[in-house]
Amino acid sequence: MSKNAQNNKKAAKTAISPTRAEDYAQWYQQVVRASDMAELSGVRGCMVIKAWGYGAWELMQRELDRRFRETGHENYYFPLFIPLSYFQREADHVAGFAKEMAIVTHHRLTIKDGVLVPDGELEEPLAIRPTSETVIGESMSKWVQSYRDLPILLNQWANVVRWEMRPRILLRTAEFLWQEGHTAHETYEEAMKETRLMLDVYGKFAEEHLAVPVIKGEKIAQERFPGAVNTFCIEAMMQDGRALQAGTSHYLGQNFAKACNIQFQSRQGNLEYVHTTSWGASTRLLGAIVMTHADDDGMRMPPRIASHQIIIVPILRDDTQSGEVMAYCESLRAELAACSYGDQPIRVKLDARDIAGGDKRWDWIKKGAPIILEVGPRDIQGGQVCVMRRDKMSAGKRFMARSEFVQTAANELEEVQQTLFNEALALREARSVNDIHDWAAFEAYFKKDADNSFVSGQGFVRAKWCGEADSLAKLDPLGVTVRCVPFDQSGTTGVCVLTGKPATQDVIFARAY
Amino acid sequence: MSKNAQNNKKAAKTAISPTRAEDYAQWYQQVVRASDMAELSGVRGCMVIKAWGYGAWELMQRELDRRFRETGHENYYFPLFIPLSYFQREADHVAGFAKEMAIVTHHRLTIKDGVLVPDGELEEPLAIRPTSETVIGESMSKWVQSYRDLPILLNQWANVVRWEMRPRILLRTAEFLWQEGHTAHETYEEAMKETRLMLDVYGKFAEEHLAVPVIKGEKIAQERFPGAVNTFCIEAMMQDGRALQAGTSHYLGQNFAKACNIQFQSRQGNLEYVHTTSWGASTRLLGAIVMTHADDDGMRMPPRIASHQIIIVPILRDDTQSGEVMAYCESLRAELAACSYGDQPIRVKLDARDIAGGDKRWDWIKKGAPIILEVGPRDIQGGQVCVMRRDKMSAGKRFMARSEFVQTAANELEEVQQTLFNEALALREARSVNDIHDWAAFEAYFKKDADNSFVSGQGFVRAKWCGEADSLAKLDPLGVTVRCVPFDQSGTTGVCVLTGKPATQDVIFARAY
Repeated sequence: MSKNAQNNKKAAKTAISPTRAEDYAQWYQQVVRASDMAELSGVRGCMVIKAWGYGAWELMQRELDRRFRETGHENYYFPLFIPLSYFQREADHVAGFAKEMAIVTHHRLTIKDGVLVPDGELEEPLAIRPTSETVIGESMSKWVQSYRDLPILLNQWANVVRWEMRPRILLRTAEFLWQEGHTAHETYEEAMKETRLMLDVYGKFAEEHLAVPVIKGEKIAQERFPGAVNTFCIEAMMQDGRALQAGTSHYLGQNFAKACNIQFQSRQGNLEYVHTTSWGASTRLLGAIVMTHADDDGMRMPPRIASHQIIIVPILRDDTQSGEVMAYCESLRAELAACSYGDQPIRVKLDARDIAGGDKRWDWIKKGAPIILEVGPRDIQGGQVCVMRRDKMSAGKRFMARSEFVQTAANELEEVQQTLFNEALALREARSVNDIHDWAAFEAYFKKDADNSFVSGQGFVRAKWCGEADSLAKLDPLGVTVRCVPFDQSGTTGVCVLTGKPATQDVIFARAY
Repeated sequence: MSKNAQNNKKAAKTAISPTRAEDYAQWYQQVVRASDMAELSGVRGCMVIKAWGYGAWELMQRELDRRFRETGHENYYFPLFIPLSYFQREADHVAGFAKEMAIVTHHRLTIKDGVLVPDGELEEPLAIRPTSETVIGESMSKWVQSYRDLPILLNQWANVVRWEMRPRILLRTAEFLWQEGHTAHETYEEAMKETRLMLDVYGKFAEEHLAVPVIKGEKIAQERFPGAVNTFCIEAMMQDGRALQAGTSHYLGQNFAKACNIQFQSRQGNLEYVHTTSWGASTRLLGAIVMTHADDDGMRMPPRIASHQIIIVPILRDDTQSGEVMAYCESLRAELAACSYGDQPIRVKLDARDIAGGDKRWDWIKKGAPIILEVGPRDIQGGQVCVMRRDKMSAGKRFMARSEFVQTAANELEEVQQTLFNEALALREARSVNDIHDWAAFEAYFKKDADNSFVSGQGFVRAKWCGEADSLAKLDPLGVTVRCVPFDQSGTTGVCVLTGKPATQDVIFARAY
């Protein structure tokens, strides 16, 4: 490294090292660690979600739950264990999940030569649920007799296990938390309406609450949920241009109804199979918000899901004044907590830990608290607060009259929320192309940089695809997949970017998490 | 059965059969089923918690969570899996749980002769958590270096598995939901203060929120949590006089700190082990409220945990008027939903299902909705509502002016809450004795009726116990245990009811769930 480069590096010192440009994958790990959202545990592939990450998940839950209730769903809880005989009923489903299931085979431990070993072998092994279609189907088959028992609209908040060979914190872990909605309907039309409705719920939630712009579309046959007839998804773009599936909604047809024998007497008096749907979103979203919003100084938490939206850091330079400063900060905290942002009280925290003010500030920068206030003796005298907005770190600190800040606090928070959304949207637009029409250009685009696409500018290619399954093999060496067939089709006819054949369907190609 | 008895039986027809007096255990199963709170699943020992039961659990969670936050705790999430090597670190802990653990030994399935079989054997088997002291201790050992990192005050909402040989729905199932608090402190005093504080939280919650009166006390050594130094508990009395442990709080001493190596540099500069606590309450509480409040017509849900506190049943006798009735009911619903009970909006539901009004009424009686309103054309004309309170079924229906009911709805709900508490307290007082001083009287009391203690009037015996472990064997044939050493000790000296030796300690003896 030249002397100059060294100096530049020093000048641009960041809280997170490496930076996104230096090593995106490592940067991600470091942000998760530095923000104290989660960490890998000693249990293979499993994580510990810490207070700052779990708090964001709880706020996501609260909002999703509100939207699920608003659309008529109720929460249930079903068993963690699925007997293998249930699982075997739907062939595609088994094929899709068999390779990554945790299996319980024993029901006690015994000590042998001083070591604990499994004992009490089960007659039928039990899978830990990777998803609950089959165990919920079993219940539905008992609950449904007539069309009067339909629709069934339920949701479950639960943990699931998919044995990941290459875990990545928050994004891909052996155990993760999620919600899974499961519904049963009389007709195709009703079930499809539900499937699309829930995709809309996810789409609005992602954009309005997580500040993550998404593209809504349908998965191609090869990317469907195992056992589904149609899979719809919302796809987001991470800062390295890769796609992340942020929620899916499946129309399952009568596949699971037949597998689980969910039949009902129709209005016409016939015995028919119900049409089912399922839809889910998971703690993967915590990974998505890190990869969407974090910068080289750490996380930037969207206000709507920040457990603490405003942090007050008392600046105590002199013991004689610390009582006065703390009292002022506490009264400011109470005043802000009495204000509302959206339909909820502002979540404000006074950081009273016994460490230096500067250390506190950097803690909250790395965690990504939307607004940090610093209050020292001089600010009290001047009746002001020193405001730092996490979305505008480069703008530095602003001094505002205390009363003015209190009045505009909710607006400031909403501005942070909007800035995060706008920046993510601008990034996606900058890294989306729709002028690639042939394989040579397509290959050149994705070959630019397979390792560090944060720098390359690669992202989403919107192009025509003829729909031939065989043609997808060309994508494998590039690590690219069809992310979805977006709902907003152009309706034009062109040529397939993979085969050169005539094609009308627009699809999104990208590398993905 | 004589003709007279038959007639009497008919006259006293109840919605639940058998009644409590006829067969208490069966009555319990039937109430859970008829109230639609939960049902056993096809998965051995596991249950499905349905909307009405899960809704009550969510309201319990909300209130407990509020109280946990108020006392400084934050939510985390830890892995479902515990490596056997973690578990083995605390000998008493292993001994206490080894016989009832689900063990994962494989991580995929493969098809062999057309049947799914476990494949991909794990190097180290994983236990499904029956409780998380060891896996959380592993994390704490990494987080704690100095006294500045203490206290750690965390809680987790999770599912746990204890392989029950004789499952009983809601009360004892292989998988159940719970919260487990885990804290680490510098000193014995702090940890003990926390342990007692959380017991108080449970006690207040049970009485104020679940309307379940409880006795607070300490478990004797033989009944402690495996690995604990002290276990404190709240004990409730069910309607058959049996005790049910409704929450526990453990001072774990330095046992788990040593097992998991959680050391810190003290204020004096020494390397010391932290003092830890843990405390938990589970979906078992759903069983407790059924056994405390239900009657021979079904569940009686305490208003504070009822997903729907007031049900509006439209009475539609004539198609021409049904539009008018539904509109009136909807406006009444909206008016009530705008009122508050406690600090929350009243939860009111208009039951618009396409079935007869009488069927709806009985559905909600069996579910135990606190207040049911019926509204038909004549009520609209008279500007009135027909009110039925679930706690006063025998009082029948009351007609009230609509405006008067709306004004007093919150009071009515609070009266239901108080009635349920008062009845449970009265039952406990009626079935508690403190005048048994020798073994003969003790044995006679509990021998009266071992099978149907709903009728016998048996309950809690408060008597002296000398503390000799050997003496407890006398209790085994009676199926009685020492429930706790209640905090409110009389301070008198007497004779041990088991040995006749001098004794000062008051304990509560009872049969228990």
